[in-house]
Amino acid sequence: MYAVIFRAKPGVQDEEYGITVAKMRELAFEKYGCLEFVAATAGEEEVTISYWENEDAIKHWKNDSEHALAQSLGRKTWYESYIVQVVEIKREYSFN
Amino acid sequence: MYAVIFRAKPGVQDEEYGITVAKMRELAFEKYGCLEFVAATAGEEEVTISYWENEDAIKHWKNDSEHALAQSLGRKTWYESYIVQVVEIKREYSFN
Repeated sequence: MYAVIFRAKPGVQDEEYGITVAKMRELAFEKYGCLEFVAATAGEEEVTISYWENEDAIKHWKNDSEHALAQSLGRKTWYESYIVQVVEIKREYSFN
Repeated sequence: MYAVIFRAKPGVQDEEYGITVAKMRELAFEKYGCLEFVAATAGEEEVTISYWENEDAIKHWKNDSEHALAQSLGRKTWYESYIVQVVEIKREYSFN
C-alpha cells in the first residue's frame, strides 16, 4: 500500500476552495480508487494523508485534468507553500 | 528517508501523559536521530508523523527502554486504539 502525505501552509482559502476540496475528494475515491483520507491540522499547517493501492493509482490521480486545475489554483491562491511526500507502507501494526 | 505515521484515538490523558510525550520527543531527537516531528489532530484523532534517516533508527527508537514503558502506558491508559505505519519516502516535491 502507498500513501501521499500532503503538508501545506494555507494561503487565501475562498469559498471555491472548500467546494473544490470536497469535489476532489469524491473524485479521488470514485474514479481513482483512493482507499482512505485523513485530514488533520497542526497549528497553521494542514496535514492530509491519502492511502492508495499502488503508485500507479497516485500517478493517474495526479494527472487527472480536474485535479491538475485544482493543483494550479492551489499554487496560485489557496496555498502559500506545500510539500508532497509519496510513501510506501512497509509495515503496520495496531492496538485496539 | 523513512517516516512513522501514528494515528490514535485518545483514552485517559492525564498530566503524566503530557510530561511523557515531551520527554519522548526529546529522547527521539537527541538519542535516536529523529529528523522532524509533526503533531496534528483530525477531529478526535491524533495524527503524528516522525521522520527518520532509515529503518534501523526507527527500530532502535521503538526498543528504547523508556519508550517501551511509555508505549505500555499508552496501551493501558492514554490511548483507546492506535495504528502505526512505518513508511519509506519514495519521492517528494514541494511548492514555495
